[in-house]
Amino acid sequence: MALWRAIADTLRAEIASGQWRPGQRLPPEAVLAARFGVNRHTLRHAARTLADEGLLYARRGAGVFVAAAPVDYPLGQRVRFHRNIELAGKVPGRRIDAVMTRPASPSEAAALDLPAGAEVHAAEGLSTVDFRPVALFRSVFPAARLPGLPAALRETGSITRALAACGIEDYCRVHTRIAAQVADAAQAAQLQIDPGEALLRTETLNAAAGIPVERGRTWWAAGRVTLTLQDHS
Amino acid sequence: MALWRAIADTLRAEIASGQWRPGQRLPPEAVLAARFGVNRHTLRHAARTLADEGLLYARRGAGVFVAAAPVDYPLGQRVRFHRNIELAGKVPGRRIDAVMTRPASPSEAAALDLPAGAEVHAAEGLSTVDFRPVALFRSVFPAARLPGLPAALRETGSITRALAACGIEDYCRVHTRIAAQVADAAQAAQLQIDPGEALLRTETLNAAAGIPVERGRTWWAAGRVTLTLQDHS
Repeated sequence: MALWRAIADTLRAEIASGQWRPGQRLPPEAVLAARFGVNRHTLRHAARTLADEGLLYARRGAGVFVAAAPVDYPLGQRVRFHRNIELAGKVPGRRIDAVMTRPASPSEAAALDLPAGAEVHAAEGLSTVDFRPVALFRSVFPAARLPGLPAALRETGSITRALAACGIEDYCRVHTRIAAQVADAAQAAQLQIDPGEALLRTETLNAAAGIPVERGRTWWAAGRVTLTLQDHS
Repeated sequence: MALWRAIADTLRAEIASGQWRPGQRLPPEAVLAARFGVNRHTLRHAARTLADEGLLYARRGAGVFVAAAPVDYPLGQRVRFHRNIELAGKVPGRRIDAVMTRPASPSEAAALDLPAGAEVHAAEGLSTVDFRPVALFRSVFPAARLPGLPAALRETGSITRALAACGIEDYCRVHTRIAAQVADAAQAAQLQIDPGEALLRTETLNAAAGIPVERGRTWWAAGRVTLTLQDHS
């Protein structure tokens, strides 16, 4: 077996056992290289493998850290933030920072199947898991179909409950698009990560009885969430 | 309507119409701000909106560029690189750089349901769309179940065809996990992107008749591919 692979296996097992904890900095390269009796090149190869797996991450000038195990977020046909997070045994939180009603942009109108210039309710805010920020979200809803939504959003703080208050008891995903980008300064500040860290970006269209009710965009702190697809479940 | 939103709509329409082409640099901020008769703050707000949507990207010190429309890659139950890319009207390519047989790591053995120390075939390489790199991949396969795979991989250059040559005519996804990270120098060089750009990382377990046949990891250049989930299709 290649030496770097044996070192990666050892470090992986140590992380899994809790010997290295999330957020903890690994000893400097030279120290680890000495521990394993290898050169820095070999050690770096092992560390890169673990970084590829999402177990370690580097901060420029600060060293290599153990990543917190990200929470699994299932992308089922019914995407419900609170329920998904509770299923993972964590505490979900959602803060709606702004709700406004304005004309749809052309892409919003097209997505929601609205005539040009129709109004949408737009909501944005922050989602937390165990009281730590995990995602920024921005959703738009057809205003004419859901006149009571802004009040319900402010009252319930939950998109699922606000839609239910407007008579939408069930809604399903029509499609989800998944991309990635790096966080800019504003996103990083809100998510309490560093600018330049990776974000997962999802864009989902939800419909009830075939009629679009929400187009949601979410920017997930990639170090904190893994999106999962499970078949036959 | 907010001024920045009107500017974003105008630029979005110009990009959609082909007036600004992928890879093209936008005029400097001051020039665009003068064109729209707004201050830089307003212009920046519009540009950030389009960057959030993946239509523009900034390169430090070089300016703001129009992003090439990423290719849609459907994450269906049967993930087949060649077929997916051809469905998008593009030319798929796959280069297998290395195939080796070695003992499974603990996580590989667990994923493939193998006893500790069992051997896997490992393959890695590069996927292209229209002759441009889009993804790095690394897959492991149970060696005892697929003795002829390395030769078939080298001969066919295709995982789907190599598995077929070993008698696995059909296989399905058991699960896919989706994460994001930033490209390191080695990944960036292979993908011909800049270090620090965002990568989508997928990890998929495929099985045939309930038996795991492949665990594949793929690092996608996020600017070039959007992963999509379509329901009721």
